[in-house]
Amino acid sequence: MTATTIPNDYTVRRIESRDFEGAKTALAGLTIVGEISQKEFDSILNYWDSVLLPTGEQAYNTFVITVKDTERVAAIGTIFIEKKIIHNGGLVGHIEDIAVNSDFRGQKLGKILIDYLSSVGKQLGCYKTILDCDVKNVGFYEKCDYKEAGIEMQIRY
Amino acid sequence: MTATTIPNDYTVRRIESRDFEGAKTALAGLTIVGEISQKEFDSILNYWDSVLLPTGEQAYNTFVITVKDTERVAAIGTIFIEKKIIHNGGLVGHIEDIAVNSDFRGQKLGKILIDYLSSVGKQLGCYKTILDCDVKNVGFYEKCDYKEAGIEMQIRY
Ligand SMILES: CC(C)(COP(=O)(O)OP(=O)(O)OC[C@H]1O[C@@H](n2cnc3c(N)ncnc32)[C@H](O)[C@@H]1OP(=O)(O)O)[C@@H](O)C(=O)NCCC(=O)NCCS
Ligand SMILES: CC(C)(COP(=O)(O)OP(=O)(O)OC[C@H]1O[C@@H](n2cnc3c(N)ncnc32)[C@H](O)[C@@H]1OP(=O)(O)O)[C@@H](O)C(=O)NCCC(=O)NCCS
Repeated sequence: MTATTIPNDYTVRRIESRDFEGAKTALAGLTIVGEISQKEFDSILNYWDSVLLPTGEQAYNTFVITVKDTERVAAIGTIFIEKKIIHNGGLVGHIEDIAVNSDFRGQKLGKILIDYLSSVGKQLGCYKTILDCDVKNVGFYEKCDYKEAGIEMQIRY
Repeated sequence: MTATTIPNDYTVRRIESRDFEGAKTALAGLTIVGEISQKEFDSILNYWDSVLLPTGEQAYNTFVITVKDTERVAAIGTIFIEKKIIHNGGLVGHIEDIAVNSDFRGQKLGKILIDYLSSVGKQLGCYKTILDCDVKNVGFYEKCDYKEAGIEMQIRY
């Protein structure tokens, strides 16, 4: 991985309760967030913390890139780790819900976040990390060393 | 969903310890399974059982279709349920590791399994279920009411 270094004025860290507004704003650039309250947000974070891998490490790993001075959320993304039977009981990382706040796009923060999440997957012992994206973002993920692997299919209820 | 009925001589049920050999054989038609022992298999099943949703239901749901008389595993597949912030703290189903044992292909068991897993996702409250597949299987999933939604990207370590 040709990791891009994080600029001095930004921090990458696990999501926290105080990221409620910033996380919602960033994610609103990706899809519908809805009317979740601070309490509901906290309960999702607590739920995520409770889901552990066989090794005792966390299965849900959501990170934010924040502006050092203001704690504004510039970017957000998750890597969820799945335990399988195949590949010797292997682990696969699933990158989900990547969003760079529109005020912060085009500054390499998206790439920094993906590189970071990919390295988390590697450290946790995954044999691969996968993600689904819109055709228009394939070029972005290729810059993050991802390659096309298949087709995403969906059914909506 | 236009669910296909399961033929009389087959059962759909949650995976169990005794499916060790049958699960490995079916999955070997999909990818590398490796040298996992019965003990390792059991510990994966126990781990899966331990991962709960906020509602208390199971997040990992692996089902087999077996032959009633012999308990032979004809097909296997998983739906894992992910908790998100987006879509009002919504749930998304991820279908993973679908395999029909080569002796049992072309008998609608693949479609029966996907219909079953999709209905599990719906019952557990997911707003959608997604899966990744090879281009050559898009037609199969379209028969199961799935639609193309994006591109799967991967990084291997
Ligand atoms: C897609 C997104 C995450 C990219 O983040 P970003 O911080 O703006 O991108 P970066 O600055 O890190 O870009 C890294 C490189 O990828 C390139 N790139 C960015 N978006 C691209 C795209 N859609 N297609 C091709 N290349 C792209 C950049 O030009 C840059 O290239 P360079 O290193 O040669 O200069 C961001 O635009 C976003 O959040 N969009 C809306 C939500 C979304 O679509 N999420 C992903 C769902 S799959
Ligand atoms: C792909 C697979 C799951 C299909 O299972 P199956 O039990 O053989 O398929 P079914 O009998 O349920 O097929 C249902 C329908 O889909 C069609 N179909 C099956 N495979 C297809 C394919 N690759 N492309 C297009 N249509 C296909 C069938 O013809 C049938 O159509 P019909 O209802 O009009 O008769 C199975 O072949 C398999 O396990 N393959 C190897 C492992 C694999 O590729 N797994 C999926 C990874 S993405």
